[in-house]
Amino acid sequence: MLVVGELINSSRKAVAQAIAERNTEYIQDLARKQVEAGAHIIDVNCGTSIGEEEKVMTWLVTSVQEVVDVPLCIDSPSAGALAAGLAVHKGQAMINSITAEKDRWQEVLPLVQKYKAKIIALCMDDGGMPETVEDRLRVADKLVPGLLEAGIPEDDIYLDPLIKPLGVNSRYGVEALDAVAALKEKYPKVHTICGLSNVSYGLPERRLLNRAFMVMCLTKGMDAFILDPLDGQLMGLLKAAMALAGQDEYCLEYIAAARAGRIKA
Amino acid sequence: MLVVGELINSSRKAVAQAIAERNTEYIQDLARKQVEAGAHIIDVNCGTSIGEEEKVMTWLVTSVQEVVDVPLCIDSPSAGALAAGLAVHKGQAMINSITAEKDRWQEVLPLVQKYKAKIIALCMDDGGMPETVEDRLRVADKLVPGLLEAGIPEDDIYLDPLIKPLGVNSRYGVEALDAVAALKEKYPKVHTICGLSNVSYGLPERRLLNRAFMVMCLTKGMDAFILDPLDGQLMGLLKAAMALAGQDEYCLEYIAAARAGRIKA
Repeated sequence: MLVVGELINSSRKAVAQAIAERNTEYIQDLARKQVEAGAHIIDVNCGTSIGEEEKVMTWLVTSVQEVVDVPLCIDSPSAGALAAGLAVHKGQAMINSITAEKDRWQEVLPLVQKYKAKIIALCMDDGGMPETVEDRLRVADKLVPGLLEAGIPEDDIYLDPLIKPLGVNSRYGVEALDAVAALKEKYPKVHTICGLSNVSYGLPERRLLNRAFMVMCLTKGMDAFILDPLDGQLMGLLKAAMALAGQDEYCLEYIAAARAGRIKA
Repeated sequence: MLVVGELINSSRKAVAQAIAERNTEYIQDLARKQVEAGAHIIDVNCGTSIGEEEKVMTWLVTSVQEVVDVPLCIDSPSAGALAAGLAVHKGQAMINSITAEKDRWQEVLPLVQKYKAKIIALCMDDGGMPETVEDRLRVADKLVPGLLEAGIPEDDIYLDPLIKPLGVNSRYGVEALDAVAALKEKYPKVHTICGLSNVSYGLPERRLLNRAFMVMCLTKGMDAFILDPLDGQLMGLLKAAMALAGQDEYCLEYIAAARAGRIKA
């Protein structure tokens, strides 16, 4: 199970402000807290820093890696910002994300190869957002063979089925869950990942939906999540679900976390 | 989705005391609170009232039905106590439970028929506790056809795969979940049910495991639970998981519950 901490994202107001003020301490503290709470990778996204994203990404990556020992997930719609972050990153980074859109594919693939990065591959192509499980499989059938041909190991590929808001269509939850199962069945050695918060967009008590959706995705075989590790209930449910799914022999990890007070009902 | 409230059970100390003192008010209050929290059926179990279980069951059923309008789940290892409770119950009761053990089958089946009750059918026979998914399917292959032949409608049958403690064997979670899926596939019109708390027996922070297990069982197709409806986080996750599983069109129920403050993250 791989946990990517999502909190260093400039779409969050406090982070945008910290970026504007180059508040290194705030960013470093947020990285440290996420690692302490169980994140294995820290996502860094400064997509709203228009015009200076490359500079900001460099600063973010450097600042975060000064204080935590985990790799980062360099997250941007701009290939330039990805390249800037990767250039200063120490260790094996993760890139968020490549798609099967022609332009994006051509821009991002060389970076994945050059930096031997883990890659989040979003099930989306120039046809737009996938509507069905079959749409996602069809896109995955371009992404996975394409990445393998380019020399990317299966173990570095993280397929993201693309999660749409349940508030827009009450079939979107089932569609995503069925896609996870289908992707896992077709590509058992490739990982599956998603961000949790899209699913609850626009609905009340979003964390309840994010938590339930995480457990449901895990039940369908998903083995990586981009989430808020500071949500203690979410992290407790993750450990519990892993134990129940047989991914924690003798429940040792679960019991240790509970005894240490790291997870609480 | 059917929610059976589990709290009126004499294995709980406060309930045992209330029974010993014939504290009608305490029992009625516990029934009322569970219905207000979303229980559709109230389980009543006085298995520890040795020697007077029939009398106590009669009192419990009568007391609870004085204050709530929902049916009860008459829960006892003693067929005499089941009969006593059913005799005074108003409306369609649920019986917890029949098994494929020869004696239990012969004692309980006539009660199911006489009272046209919903029946929880536990996947267990004279061979003892099931060890594998196949064991459970083999027992279900006796239970379901047997009940149908006896005139019990499919819609009144609730198969319980029998949940064993994860703390004893870290495969017991997966085994139970795979059994839910297999039972649902083989008998799509028969319901599946389980008590949540067995799975966490002996482990710390049990509610975390119960909550995660509920969401996982629901993802596998389970459509009824015996649970503690006063666990607000559990009930919130249940509503969220139902919405995500496409069982709540336009998320209307979820949104209404959140807006009314009945569920909270």
